[in-house]
Amino acid sequence: MNRTLDFYEPIKQELNEVENSLFKLSDVSVDCVSPLLGHLFQVQGKKMRPAITILSSKLFPGSREEPLLMAGAVELLHLATLIHDDTVDDASTRRGRATIASLWGPQVAVLVGDYIFATSATFVCNTNNIRVIRRFSETIMELSTGELMEQFSLFDWRQTRKQYEDRIYNKTACLFSTSGESGAVLSKAPESVVQSMKNYGKYLGMAFQVIDDILDFEADASEMGKPVGNDLVQGILTLPGMLLLERYPNDNPIVSLFEGKDEEKNLKKALDMLHNSETIQNSYLVAEGFARQATEVISDIPESAYKRSLVEIASYAVERQN
Amino acid sequence: MNRTLDFYEPIKQELNEVENSLFKLSDVSVDCVSPLLGHLFQVQGKKMRPAITILSSKLFPGSREEPLLMAGAVELLHLATLIHDDTVDDASTRRGRATIASLWGPQVAVLVGDYIFATSATFVCNTNNIRVIRRFSETIMELSTGELMEQFSLFDWRQTRKQYEDRIYNKTACLFSTSGESGAVLSKAPESVVQSMKNYGKYLGMAFQVIDDILDFEADASEMGKPVGNDLVQGILTLPGMLLLERYPNDNPIVSLFEGKDEEKNLKKALDMLHNSETIQNSYLVAEGFARQATEVISDIPESAYKRSLVEIASYAVERQN
Repeated sequence: MNRTLDFYEPIKQELNEVENSLFKLSDVSVDCVSPLLGHLFQVQGKKMRPAITILSSKLFPGSREEPLLMAGAVELLHLATLIHDDTVDDASTRRGRATIASLWGPQVAVLVGDYIFATSATFVCNTNNIRVIRRFSETIMELSTGELMEQFSLFDWRQTRKQYEDRIYNKTACLFSTSGESGAVLSKAPESVVQSMKNYGKYLGMAFQVIDDILDFEADASEMGKPVGNDLVQGILTLPGMLLLERYPNDNPIVSLFEGKDEEKNLKKALDMLHNSETIQNSYLVAEGFARQATEVISDIPESAYKRSLVEIASYAVERQN
Repeated sequence: MNRTLDFYEPIKQELNEVENSLFKLSDVSVDCVSPLLGHLFQVQGKKMRPAITILSSKLFPGSREEPLLMAGAVELLHLATLIHDDTVDDASTRRGRATIASLWGPQVAVLVGDYIFATSATFVCNTNNIRVIRRFSETIMELSTGELMEQFSLFDWRQTRKQYEDRIYNKTACLFSTSGESGAVLSKAPESVVQSMKNYGKYLGMAFQVIDDILDFEADASEMGKPVGNDLVQGILTLPGMLLLERYPNDNPIVSLFEGKDEEKNLKKALDMLHNSETIQNSYLVAEGFARQATEVISDIPESAYKRSLVEIASYAVERQN
């Protein structure tokens, strides 16, 4: 765990337990599935979603076991969506390692994704909490809706900010929201805390995705493992591009790029304009706004090490470089 | 409903209600998802899984609503697996209509499959029955395991009958089993009936899949929408091929075909040998054995129109021509 993630300190033990419960999955599964899961769990992500579930469950004293099951479930669900996304995007690497799709083919990747989806659902079932189980199913619907929204809006430069926010809520923020909500529900926190944590997760997730979309224009290839401006190349319009279209509605290179005209030249031109205008900076302001809202909605929750971590995560979501 | 499916008569009303509840899904969903679901629900399948759930729930008086939710769920789950299978197999038609993958691309098909998976789970959640919800999640794991087993055994002519039976249990029979089990659980039938219906579904599903595998060698292209021997071409070894390998272990054209030698000639030779030997007939005997077991495990259940339908379905599973 690197220095930046100090806010995981109060729940280090719990996060390790969750990690171990996922590792163990590759032991028990059938022959052909085992190496796939082994490959998958070797790579360590940021573990933000399980951390939020665990921190949320610590705000009020309650049962320890169910939130850990749920934390495993939200991480597994996240992994399942990554596998299907990589298949959909034809991505060859993820977190610096070869994707399941590139190693075993898209067929296997689709099925392993399904397997992990189902495994995550069995984790949630083991909480025996119908409210959380139902919310989890709805979350899978929202996640796939978000990805479908993205697929159906490719190369459409006329999208509104409202459409963008709907899309990133579904694609990303809903799972953060479910992570926060379920931790509170399973620790039997008061309903007001459940709602606060649900909203905390939502706003944090929005901030997180806006930053992801900004980093797509900023990070160099060695850091993110993909070229700068990759979203634009794929026809995905995100906040920085939208702000550029608002600022320069006439003769905008993104329009030409999306219409398939002189792609290399127009991509370069769009990237130059993005970096020489205030659009990236203004995108950061939007992300900071969401992160601030995340912090504000939990302002009534009593102070504790766990709450401090939640506040720090909101800052980290905006400050992170990858 | 055609004449062959007379055994649906006692639950005609219920099946219509389930069908309508699925149709309604395309109204309520978000803009971009709606036409996809509309396309999907236009095609009517055999509705065997929901029929089994409903019939099972009628054997003992109990709640009416939950079994109907579950019947919708098992049909949706079946549809979701078909969408992912068609994507995996690169199939262009299903039940005589273009597949989602061929119309909207594999990307969208993967995501719509996920969406339907999740929708099926929300139907199950609405039963509020944890036992059934958990069984449903396990079933999705088994279904994807079955498909993975198939992917990992492609072009392997050394497979055993045991491996084949494991594979078709996971791929097909487990969902039939869950359909039978859940109907009984949700109508609060005695545990012995639950176990009988679970086993009925399992054996019926085994019979159903063996027949599917036989029909792959028999149906002409206009009936099944795919060429004869398609499984062999794709490297999928099923019961008839296994029996042929057992009967003619030396110089078998399936071995040459799977090793990529002179494919056209060896496929033709394998098909000729299959049709000129007792292997197809012996495969029917295996299917009939499973169907008989299905009928036997429910022999202690009191007679009724519903039980009669279950028995007739077991006969139909073996006699059907498509």
